[in-house]
Amino acid sequence: MTPPDDFAIQPIVDALCQEAEPVLSGHYRMVLPSRERVIAIVEDVRSLFFPGYFGTQDLRNDTLRFHVGATLDRVRVTLDEEIRRAVAFAEKHDFDACPHCAIAASEATRKFVARLPAVRRLVAGDVEAAFEGDPALRTRDEAIFAYPGIFAVTNQRVAHELHVLGVPLIPRIITEHAHTITGIDIHPGAAIGEKFFIDHGTGVVVGETAILGRNVTLYQGVTLGAKSFPLDANGN
Amino acid sequence: MTPPDDFAIQPIVDALCQEAEPVLSGHYRMVLPSRERVIAIVEDVRSLFFPGYFGTQDLRNDTLRFHVGATLDRVRVTLDEEIRRAVAFAEKHDFDACPHCAIAASEATRKFVARLPAVRRLVAGDVEAAFEGDPALRTRDEAIFAYPGIFAVTNQRVAHELHVLGVPLIPRIITEHAHTITGIDIHPGAAIGEKFFIDHGTGVVVGETAILGRNVTLYQGVTLGAKSFPLDANGN
Amino acid sequence: MTPPDDFAIQPIVDALCQEAEPVLSGHYRMVLPSRERVIAIVEDVRSLFFPGYFGTQDLRNDTLRFHVGATLDRVRVTLDEEIRRAVAFAEKHDFDACPHCAIAASEATRKFVARLPAVRRLVAGDVEAAFEGDPALRTRDEAIFAYPGIFAVTNQRVAHELHVLGVPLIPRIITEHAHTITGIDIHPGAAIGEKFFIDHGTGVVVGETAILGRNVTLYQGVTLGAKSFPLDANGN
Amino acid sequence: MTPPDDFAIQPIVDALCQEAEPVLSGHYRMVLPSRERVIAIVEDVRSLFFPGYFGTQDLRNDTLRFHVGATLDRVRVTLDEEIRRAVAFAEKHDFDACPHCAIAASEATRKFVARLPAVRRLVAGDVEAAFEGDPALRTRDEAIFAYPGIFAVTNQRVAHELHVLGVPLIPRIITEHAHTITGIDIHPGAAIGEKFFIDHGTGVVVGETAILGRNVTLYQGVTLGAKSFPLDANGN
Amino acid sequence: MTPPDDFAIQPIVDALCQEAEPVLSGHYRMVLPSRERVIAIVEDVRSLFFPGYFGTQDLRNDTLRFHVGATLDRVRVTLDEEIRRAVAFAEKHDFDACPHCAIAASEATRKFVARLPAVRRLVAGDVEAAFEGDPALRTRDEAIFAYPGIFAVTNQRVAHELHVLGVPLIPRIITEHAHTITGIDIHPGAAIGEKFFIDHGTGVVVGETAILGRNVTLYQGVTLGAKSFPLDANGN
Amino acid sequence: MTPPDDFAIQPIVDALCQEAEPVLSGHYRMVLPSRERVIAIVEDVRSLFFPGYFGTQDLRNDTLRFHVGATLDRVRVTLDEEIRRAVAFAEKHDFDACPHCAIAASEATRKFVARLPAVRRLVAGDVEAAFEGDPALRTRDEAIFAYPGIFAVTNQRVAHELHVLGVPLIPRIITEHAHTITGIDIHPGAAIGEKFFIDHGTGVVVGETAILGRNVTLYQGVTLGAKSFPLDANGN
Repeated sequence: MTPPDDFAIQPIVDALCQEAEPVLSGHYRMVLPSRERVIAIVEDVRSLFFPGYFGTQDLRNDTLRFHVGATLDRVRVTLDEEIRRAVAFAEKHDFDACPHCAIAASEATRKFVARLPAVRRLVAGDVEAAFEGDPALRTRDEAIFAYPGIFAVTNQRVAHELHVLGVPLIPRIITEHAHTITGIDIHPGAAIGEKFFIDHGTGVVVGETAILGRNVTLYQGVTLGAKSFPLDANGN
Repeated sequence: MTPPDDFAIQPIVDALCQEAEPVLSGHYRMVLPSRERVIAIVEDVRSLFFPGYFGTQDLRNDTLRFHVGATLDRVRVTLDEEIRRAVAFAEKHDFDACPHCAIAASEATRKFVARLPAVRRLVAGDVEAAFEGDPALRTRDEAIFAYPGIFAVTNQRVAHELHVLGVPLIPRIITEHAHTITGIDIHPGAAIGEKFFIDHGTGVVVGETAILGRNVTLYQGVTLGAKSFPLDANGN
Repeated sequence: MTPPDDFAIQPIVDALCQEAEPVLSGHYRMVLPSRERVIAIVEDVRSLFFPGYFGTQDLRNDTLRFHVGATLDRVRVTLDEEIRRAVAFAEKHDFDACPHCAIAASEATRKFVARLPAVRRLVAGDVEAAFEGDPALRTRDEAIFAYPGIFAVTNQRVAHELHVLGVPLIPRIITEHAHTITGIDIHPGAAIGEKFFIDHGTGVVVGETAILGRNVTLYQGVTLGAKSFPLDANGN
Repeated sequence: MTPPDDFAIQPIVDALCQEAEPVLSGHYRMVLPSRERVIAIVEDVRSLFFPGYFGTQDLRNDTLRFHVGATLDRVRVTLDEEIRRAVAFAEKHDFDACPHCAIAASEATRKFVARLPAVRRLVAGDVEAAFEGDPALRTRDEAIFAYPGIFAVTNQRVAHELHVLGVPLIPRIITEHAHTITGIDIHPGAAIGEKFFIDHGTGVVVGETAILGRNVTLYQGVTLGAKSFPLDANGN
Repeated sequence: MTPPDDFAIQPIVDALCQEAEPVLSGHYRMVLPSRERVIAIVEDVRSLFFPGYFGTQDLRNDTLRFHVGATLDRVRVTLDEEIRRAVAFAEKHDFDACPHCAIAASEATRKFVARLPAVRRLVAGDVEAAFEGDPALRTRDEAIFAYPGIFAVTNQRVAHELHVLGVPLIPRIITEHAHTITGIDIHPGAAIGEKFFIDHGTGVVVGETAILGRNVTLYQGVTLGAKSFPLDANGN
Repeated sequence: MTPPDDFAIQPIVDALCQEAEPVLSGHYRMVLPSRERVIAIVEDVRSLFFPGYFGTQDLRNDTLRFHVGATLDRVRVTLDEEIRRAVAFAEKHDFDACPHCAIAASEATRKFVARLPAVRRLVAGDVEAAFEGDPALRTRDEAIFAYPGIFAVTNQRVAHELHVLGVPLIPRIITEHAHTITGIDIHPGAAIGEKFFIDHGTGVVVGETAILGRNVTLYQGVTLGAKSFPLDANGN
């Protein structure tokens, strides 16, 4: 007796494999960076920028240094691995064996880590800008903890550092994560000045070639430096 | 032999700690409400409003009361804890010891729970409005189960109750969660009348001071009662 | 001694149950499809379309077929179950016992699976369109791995197949998942031609009745074939 | 160039499939009960016996009934499903379609649930026996919360009820779970009188045919009613 | 029509509640320590004793201190909370409000943390004893990483410190966890000298009043200082 | 004001670091195999031996090969990685760069995979022996699915293959996992003939040098080929 859901999946498997093989042909093995691990790294960086607001919540002056040090060391180790994956994938080198990819990853990680205090100052300025610009905001805490604009700009500033260092794929993963969470889509390549504030934010698009000076504020739905046809709304 | 990724993270740790210490100086210990637990509470409330659609799916008239009672009791206990955290954080009181925070949390929880049947009626009206307003909608079930507008308005109505009770931070977490899921950004303070319907929704912004009457319908991309410069789209 | 958080939840339980009972009255037991499992099925389909980019990353020509076959078989089994749940719910039949629902689910699953190679070709065309249309895109890999437009269109094309087969609820879950992740809201019923490209995407709305030809490109914030009142931005 | 780990897995796949096929031949589809879900059911039962010690910890006299009711209803629904799987597997019937299996499962579940108050009294007696028999035990709480003997006996008493009802496989899963956690191996078929106490417990074996009266105490390493050759320790 | 699994659970709920109420009567709210969190603390302690073998695996001399400091600080904070729960439960005090319990927990935590270097030296001696005593052991690494005897003795030495400080319940949870994992059951109260080695271990029982000198080795199945009737194997 | 739990953890951190540094001195970075991943590999092997009983439960003759192939390929890839970690750790080589470790891992993986059909036949014989030897066993299914003896012997036979290939650490992890789950402790080095059956099993110890012929049955508490002093029960 033939069961009701019995049908041959073999020809469909064959058809799908045939489609896939040309895509795979250039690769022996695809080792991509992990979206989950990249996002975890960014969360670690956020907790380095605002310890206590994210990650460990019970901090004292005498133990702060342990937590910052352990988190930064974890960022160093895990980011190195993810960059190595991204470089090997982009260059189509062998992830396990390529010494060039390992060196490039170490180098980029080292430079990225060295930039963190400067990036932290930029993000602190963005919080300040939110506080000055949004009358509904009672404390800086709320901006740090719950504002989508701060979330998205922090991700972009982190991604931008990696973009400038030539790291492939990972900057995009970082800004796309912010895009998913906030609806704010800023290209990792955009050059953004100090004290940048985005209010509400959904639908904001900032393109790769955008250059923004100090004290810029953007509102929801605004596009900068990317193609946009807002009058074309009926699709013609 | 120096390993390739060996570099000193000590000065960067020091620099990050120095930045962080002024932020932390006012706090002995930061106990923030937990985003995950607040979201879980809202999901419990959603299952109180629409039992069977969310949470336990096997309900009968004779067991419904057990599930509603157990869920409501869990809401009561966990919301009390999260409000206590939010109040202690906002007031910079000691979470573990402050009796004022504990009493304020109990009081707000009690009042919130007492409002739930009324909020449920409002949300049922919003489902009705979706059913009347959207010809593509075949059953109310689909609106309850899958409409972003219903999701966002439910979150806002819940957040609004807590906002009115003066609960800090948590209302924002609730509306920001809806913002992430739906792209609809309604301030917890907005006063929204009965039978509110949002179609599609991405990019909708409703500000803190907005007051909406009965039977309002909003479409994607509309801003109400918040700063918005739609003509400024080229960033000037 | 009355503890500070002691208050009677009984009347609120009663009020909430009373509200819920009319909703539940038509059902003996609500067995809804699971959002999580539906999303997992779509992720499996994505890995069938682009093996190596999603799911198992270590593929060789001689083992590809095992992974594609095992994944497709899992899609077959789990989709059948979810469709059976959706049909039984929509028809208000008994999920456990109704043979009609089981047969309808088998039938729809079989037809859906048979369509996968064709859908794969459409999605490959969309990747091609992105590569041709976006000068910032260096490799097709990045579009496959990280472009919200590709993510959303893949979900819609999968949902559209199920929509055409008359499967209730599940197509909506699939497009709403893309809406949450990307801010792009395309109705499962929209008929979309080959080589469709969405740039940035947040705020894009494509309605149920939209019909798009070949080589269409949409930019963020554009509405097609759905009600939209962009000039109504002040809410009048 | 052949990569270092490139070797043909095809013949091994073939060999393993050939071995497997005879085992599978009698089954169209194997739907086994889930170990994880069965264990979760037993944990729910434990929280019915000792509410507050397991599961929800914040109970008051006025809300206890909600939690007990909701938990018992979940036991009812999930146990029914697992018994149906076990019966269909043991009888080699079609899990999805067999009405006999569904009825047998409902019947066994109903009878099991009706026995719970009696089983609870037996387990309360076992706690009493531990308190009377172990001078190191300061409170009954510690026996309930942390004694391996109480854990194992509770599992066996629950499993025994299902064994008596003729439920296949599930009783074994329940006693084997206790065996793993405690090293105490009591067959579901053993008939155990009131106030049974096992001290330490590792290595205790009680066989299927064992019949124990009231007030029995066992110590670690003791075998009752099962084959055992303690003098045979050199393996002859 | 009555569905096949429709039966009244109300009387069973009532019966179970009636049984439960006397147990609960003395408590307003039961706040027990969490088994999962206690086990996590012990794992943290294990990683303090053998950094690199457990927890973070990428350690250098210049970053070791960060990881040890951050882990120890987490142990301090989480153990304090769990001890506070255990004391409040044992004393039947109000967990949220009792200052006595908070002070007792702080005090015990402080003393426990101060003892860790000494306990570490004892456990290092146990590893040494395993290496000297077991010819099958090639490196100390394997004893640290995979020997049940080392696992169980580490847990007991940690539990013993808390036992000596008068902490209720938690020492038992710690030794019972080792009992589950290894089959070795050593009471937290047992006084164990330096360089203790347990080979294989299943069935070892060491009672509360046992006092062991230096260099003791135990083999599987041995009972010390606890009731044991190995000749009673037929249950008389 | 000094908070109640404020005490200096710095000296304790220093003391623990000082203890740890000699242990770490020989390593630049410790990359150990992952217990969780090794256990997952063994579970995959179990599902290769008994497809349908473990892992995917919905198998047909025409799809069996896909699942076996995909699982075997995952075993191949993940086992290779874990062996590489184990070899690098044991040899104190650099996990990331050492080509010797990579080659050794590939070699061992290849040989292990090639042995799987033969190991499968041995384990099938053990199931047969259980069925013949245990009158309480109604079907082979129950032995496969729920017998601790079968679980432990399967783990040992898998571990033994890796032991014979000279793989360090991993064989021990595999047999210790069985020891935890079943209380049966068989050294990976023990040579075990066909049709081996262990009844109940808790406390069984089989040492490294044990050689067992065909058709051996062991009962709980029996020690073979390992030191054991059962008469020494009072510790003298």
